[in-house]
Amino acid sequence: MQTYVNPPRNQWDELLQRPQLDVSGLYEQVQSVLDEIEVAGDQAVLKYSRMFDGYEGAELQVGEEEIAAASSKITKELKSAIETAAQNIKTFHATQWQLMEKVETQPGVTCWQKNVPIEKVGLYVPGGTAPLFSTVLMLGVPAKIAGCREIILCTPPGKDGKIHPAILYAASVAGIDKIYKIGGIQAIGAMTFGTESVPKVYKIFGPGNKYVTAAKQLVSLKNMAIDMPAGPSEVLIMADESANPAFVAADLLSQAEHGAGSQVILLTTVPELLDAVMAEVEKQVKSLPREDGARGALNDSRAFLLTSIDEMIKMSDLYAPEHLILAVNDAEEVADRIINAGSVFIGHYTPESAGDYASGTNHTLPTYGHARTYSGVNIDSYIRKVTFQHITPEGLKQLGPVIQEMAAAEMLDAHKNAVTIRLNEIGD
Amino acid sequence: MQTYVNPPRNQWDELLQRPQLDVSGLYEQVQSVLDEIEVAGDQAVLKYSRMFDGYEGAELQVGEEEIAAASSKITKELKSAIETAAQNIKTFHATQWQLMEKVETQPGVTCWQKNVPIEKVGLYVPGGTAPLFSTVLMLGVPAKIAGCREIILCTPPGKDGKIHPAILYAASVAGIDKIYKIGGIQAIGAMTFGTESVPKVYKIFGPGNKYVTAAKQLVSLKNMAIDMPAGPSEVLIMADESANPAFVAADLLSQAEHGAGSQVILLTTVPELLDAVMAEVEKQVKSLPREDGARGALNDSRAFLLTSIDEMIKMSDLYAPEHLILAVNDAEEVADRIINAGSVFIGHYTPESAGDYASGTNHTLPTYGHARTYSGVNIDSYIRKVTFQHITPEGLKQLGPVIQEMAAAEMLDAHKNAVTIRLNEIGD
Repeated sequence: MQTYVNPPRNQWDELLQRPQLDVSGLYEQVQSVLDEIEVAGDQAVLKYSRMFDGYEGAELQVGEEEIAAASSKITKELKSAIETAAQNIKTFHATQWQLMEKVETQPGVTCWQKNVPIEKVGLYVPGGTAPLFSTVLMLGVPAKIAGCREIILCTPPGKDGKIHPAILYAASVAGIDKIYKIGGIQAIGAMTFGTESVPKVYKIFGPGNKYVTAAKQLVSLKNMAIDMPAGPSEVLIMADESANPAFVAADLLSQAEHGAGSQVILLTTVPELLDAVMAEVEKQVKSLPREDGARGALNDSRAFLLTSIDEMIKMSDLYAPEHLILAVNDAEEVADRIINAGSVFIGHYTPESAGDYASGTNHTLPTYGHARTYSGVNIDSYIRKVTFQHITPEGLKQLGPVIQEMAAAEMLDAHKNAVTIRLNEIGD
Repeated sequence: MQTYVNPPRNQWDELLQRPQLDVSGLYEQVQSVLDEIEVAGDQAVLKYSRMFDGYEGAELQVGEEEIAAASSKITKELKSAIETAAQNIKTFHATQWQLMEKVETQPGVTCWQKNVPIEKVGLYVPGGTAPLFSTVLMLGVPAKIAGCREIILCTPPGKDGKIHPAILYAASVAGIDKIYKIGGIQAIGAMTFGTESVPKVYKIFGPGNKYVTAAKQLVSLKNMAIDMPAGPSEVLIMADESANPAFVAADLLSQAEHGAGSQVILLTTVPELLDAVMAEVEKQVKSLPREDGARGALNDSRAFLLTSIDEMIKMSDLYAPEHLILAVNDAEEVADRIINAGSVFIGHYTPESAGDYASGTNHTLPTYGHARTYSGVNIDSYIRKVTFQHITPEGLKQLGPVIQEMAAAEMLDAHKNAVTIRLNEIGD
């Protein structure tokens, strides 16, 4: 971790650069796989599953027996933890459902919004070294609350052709039973175009590596909606004299262990704390199974000694972190002043991993500066707010002349006629 | 308008095809203009303003005098209409601000969401044959309600280098004073990269031709957020025996006058009504100044005679129209059953043009099937819902083991450590 003492403001942008992603040739390569899936369906999906995942099977949908067997393959403790997390996620996301009222904007003119679930959604859960069953809950539970009619899940199989039982169990808890053993670009392609086995969906959710992200971006140029542009994970921690260096170091490492590409940033006003945290990071990182990955991320990471809480807030807002931990005095008050962040963790006993798993907030969050404009996944991600209006003849008599005046000035005569023809019929 | 009598279900997809957009070479062409603006700033913007808009001036920002003079250049009636429309838009959009409560998902674990405005937004208002000042209100009024700190507006100048006074007046009413006389790809590029004259923004809103749309899509692949993918406008009307053929024809034409590329669809269960509407369309279209454009759109348009209201709802949901007019009995009840639409107009005295201008709902809506997944522009478009959480030591004692269990199963040891190290400190 590189350390900077009170750098001048005009260097902040440069110092807060995220690791550059190498995308040369990426889009062309991904597009060609997508094109093949569009044409050849299952056959192309299976070809690339063999090539990328080493999956030699022919079955794409997970069978009922495999799903039913999952429950007996994981511990009672893990099942209970998954259920508690699902319950908290459900509790929190259910409160996000906005109640809508009808509004009479002027007499006889009534307008309203209604939450309507997106009919068909596809959830992607990456594979890799560990079974990310927590992502199944984060994407699946709100989809169910929103009332999406068709919810499918794609996740890559292991070489043995199986899906990890914790993923299948989490899917059961979330109420998802259409699960496909398909990973990477193939999964995005299959859900976009539909194949013999996989239904086409309207919106795709979920994190992934650069191939998955590129595939999501490419299909979003056509007619597919996606949750958000995803990138490597990141955390920014503000710490003052009230912070515990061991806690801060543990939080930095919990992000860093995602490996190279991830980034962690520490801001503090206390030189002694900075030193103590660096020492703790060095001490704790040695005992991590993912030490190499963590050190890779730390190479791209930065610590800043700044002069005040105001400076820390300014720098954090400029960076717009996915995760922001406030290990400072008056953390709630500081939280109120934050503009750009995905999810904010307040105080010394609120580690990021609480939100990653079980407190109830969503862990699918905007990275790479997108927190300036995107929310994390929430109920809104699964619905549309459709507007409705009803106007009475009396209402149109009042509002009509306004519409006529404006339509005429925009030289849209037919827009005006649609009012005139009605007002003529209504009469005086 | 092509007419179809009760086509079999397996032909619906084909019959509801939208006009294809020719995008060959488009993205390459647009990208090269964007690249030049990124490098050369104002100089490139001015070059393309000369080339595309015939603007020979050197001034990019609209001066205070030009803004101040606008008020005296339009009629009292138009000013009053703009003010009424703005007031209704404000009334309706203000009700969309969601109140958020703190939720204790389990004892000591408190989570909440907060609405935080996007700091910097750019609004694009197209030029062309008419001054689209209504779009200034539709994009500007909610930006103000949301509390965006910096709101800028780009719109192409006329050859005389001026912006239409109605646009400037609408901007004043909306409270926007940073206005740039820049159109097309140049505007999108300038707002994305920032230039000597134009500040960089975080999100770009607004409709446009295929060049503007392609530019928005291309910058959205980088780090820019956009409101939605925009396409040509469209309306679908459901009509039964209660409908007035002249009203229905007027509504079809109010959409068709946007010209070729736009599409209008009529669904009805009543053969006589179908004939009467077709006759009325033919009669009314002749008197339109934009007759040619309207006929262009009608060429790509369709009318369907179906057997029941249920069939009409199914077909409409399959099409997912931007605008849906319900000229049927029990229109409110039918409205309740609609799944895919941008904005719904209920009953015989609710023309689409009411929502286009003045009833209060937004007219920036998802086209081209995007209504399946996107909402129209609303307050949410200008904010993020940032999540916060606070956990007490007692709360972490309860929730901690759940997090530890899940982190261990995902083989993320550092995530687990962040909890363990705190629980050790809390003790029993």
